[in-house]
Amino acid sequence: MGSIKDKVAIVGVGCTKFGERYDKGADGLLVEAVNEAIADAGIEREQIEAGWIGTYFPSSGTAGVALSDPLRLYHIPITRVENYCVTGMDAFRNACFGVASGMYDLALVAGVEKLRESGARGIPDQGDHPILGRGRSAPGSFALTATRYLHDYGLDREVLADVAVKNHRNGAQHPKAHLRKEITREQALEAPMISSPLGLYDCCPTTDGAAAAIIARPEVARQLRDDPVYVKGIGLSVWTGRPYFTAGFDYRHWPTTQNAARDAYEQAGITNPREQIDLAEVHDCFTITELLNIEDLGFAEPGTAWRLVKEGDADPDGSIPVNASGGLKSFGHPIGATGVRLIYEVTRQLQGRAEGVQVEDPEIGLCHNIGGAGGNLAAVCILGR
Amino acid sequence: MGSIKDKVAIVGVGCTKFGERYDKGADGLLVEAVNEAIADAGIEREQIEAGWIGTYFPSSGTAGVALSDPLRLYHIPITRVENYCVTGMDAFRNACFGVASGMYDLALVAGVEKLRESGARGIPDQGDHPILGRGRSAPGSFALTATRYLHDYGLDREVLADVAVKNHRNGAQHPKAHLRKEITREQALEAPMISSPLGLYDCCPTTDGAAAAIIARPEVARQLRDDPVYVKGIGLSVWTGRPYFTAGFDYRHWPTTQNAARDAYEQAGITNPREQIDLAEVHDCFTITELLNIEDLGFAEPGTAWRLVKEGDADPDGSIPVNASGGLKSFGHPIGATGVRLIYEVTRQLQGRAEGVQVEDPEIGLCHNIGGAGGNLAAVCILGR
Repeated sequence: MGSIKDKVAIVGVGCTKFGERYDKGADGLLVEAVNEAIADAGIEREQIEAGWIGTYFPSSGTAGVALSDPLRLYHIPITRVENYCVTGMDAFRNACFGVASGMYDLALVAGVEKLRESGARGIPDQGDHPILGRGRSAPGSFALTATRYLHDYGLDREVLADVAVKNHRNGAQHPKAHLRKEITREQALEAPMISSPLGLYDCCPTTDGAAAAIIARPEVARQLRDDPVYVKGIGLSVWTGRPYFTAGFDYRHWPTTQNAARDAYEQAGITNPREQIDLAEVHDCFTITELLNIEDLGFAEPGTAWRLVKEGDADPDGSIPVNASGGLKSFGHPIGATGVRLIYEVTRQLQGRAEGVQVEDPEIGLCHNIGGAGGNLAAVCILGR
Repeated sequence: MGSIKDKVAIVGVGCTKFGERYDKGADGLLVEAVNEAIADAGIEREQIEAGWIGTYFPSSGTAGVALSDPLRLYHIPITRVENYCVTGMDAFRNACFGVASGMYDLALVAGVEKLRESGARGIPDQGDHPILGRGRSAPGSFALTATRYLHDYGLDREVLADVAVKNHRNGAQHPKAHLRKEITREQALEAPMISSPLGLYDCCPTTDGAAAAIIARPEVARQLRDDPVYVKGIGLSVWTGRPYFTAGFDYRHWPTTQNAARDAYEQAGITNPREQIDLAEVHDCFTITELLNIEDLGFAEPGTAWRLVKEGDADPDGSIPVNASGGLKSFGHPIGATGVRLIYEVTRQLQGRAEGVQVEDPEIGLCHNIGGAGGNLAAVCILGR
């Protein structure tokens, strides 16, 4: 494995208001996010040489025409990427390869999902377990992880509540978050149970949204703006479609995140993530997921992530801010959009213009996206000034 | 737009027998094609650093796990690409970017589709035309093109029959073709009508199949084999999801193919395709499509492609062999597989080891893949020794 370190720079980002967007279809959300990114980059649409679009559900659009038609971006190459919940970040990764290869000077990547009008609100058919039968839902799968994690480390649900309280507090400050309200520890702990031990506030909402980024060769980027953000490393690790219930699956960590981080760190020259990374936006589809992510990314020893959250180290003014945006907890997880939104958030943080809570003067940021019900695949991208 | 000319080489290719493959699922077909490519490259599976998988129908597999699970290729990055009928070639294109970017030394690209067990055999819902209503099928759409083409150039159905006879003759010699039988002009003309003027032999069959390629940096490729094939140029052009029935749509040519060819030719230094290209595998989902392709690719003037076919110039021993493999006419069009199969065919031709009919000593070959019912998107890839 080689590297594309500093071969690609982000010159513009855009993001819709996330939420119940019954006012627009996937096409309308894409227009909103992409036009913001174009304006942010200060380019003309005609300068875009190639596009990548991330959607998971076919109902949110298939093929390159899912991007060309809404934007009237005709007669350029556009690829649709789908990679479960890593769809957005993998679309970004492939766009980066397009630029780093020398083929394109300037490219667009966008992700979108209309989750409130897709099949996502029903119980997904993810295949039947021979014993447990049908109806394995996302909360049900992640609940298995939470149960094992809490049991093995002798913890209780309060450590999950701490994640929810932090991320809701951050999200309340972000104008584009879906859920913009603080909650108390008591609210989290007393909320209706979804799939034990995960209560309502342990789960991210079901959300519509889109996000976009314009990337360029560094020489082009520096002509466009004084503060481009560079791609330092990007890793993707794919395991299996069915890690759960298979022999040897350890519900307390996911090798996919560990492998993706290892690759991205190696490319970026990160040997001590806790010290070298100034902020992280991680995939907290459930509160338990954030705890696993913190450990899998090397910010804390196994079984200790809860302490980092409880003691304020993961707060925006802490030693390793995690989800200063409010995370998926506040933004939901419109699948194709999420990975690109993470790029959006970290880019703006590194430029000192975060919406919501700005972390103090970060130089290196991490974006982390997982796919499937934990352990199926994961991507890590390191950005830097 | 830049270029990736000579930055990527093909070191191994594989392809299943195409046909009614009720004996295997998409996973089994992938194993068959990929293992052949691995053996052809003379590598160990563990050397594969990254993968790209092309599938169109979710029933043929989604996300990177569609490739990792069948092959047990775990803990590497794998991207799923979907781009209508250009899915296979766009997966190849993105894999090329991955290698050309400097990130990977050796990568796998595979495409698969189980068309006989998907929704493809029913009438697709491609959206309703306000006047013509529901049920616009692929034959129905391409029939509109055939009608206009034949009318405007004063031709009759016999020019279509000539394409069918040529491609069936070629395919009869190819051990991996779905339909391996010669037909006569009379058979073609007297066959049951599918959608006037397209009869049974004007349509490609409904087919299962998979294809794969291993690509590498040129330095790595030359260590693996004496005859790697280089990517000289690759173009993709995306237009709209609904070109048909829109004002100004010219049913006699597709700007997507023209644009994709223009880009690929520019990268490869092709200024006179008829002279410089030694063979072409083009997307003949219907006989009329091949005639349009021949013209859109610059091998013949508008309205004259039929003459090139009729007079033998497009035969394997002609001046510009088109579909020496038998084309989609003989192979069918398992969507994710087709673009990769084109790479397979042209690679083996350039290496002098074509299955079926070998063209005499070709140095430069062209692969062409279209998506949607004509005019939605198209890709062109130039390969050379």
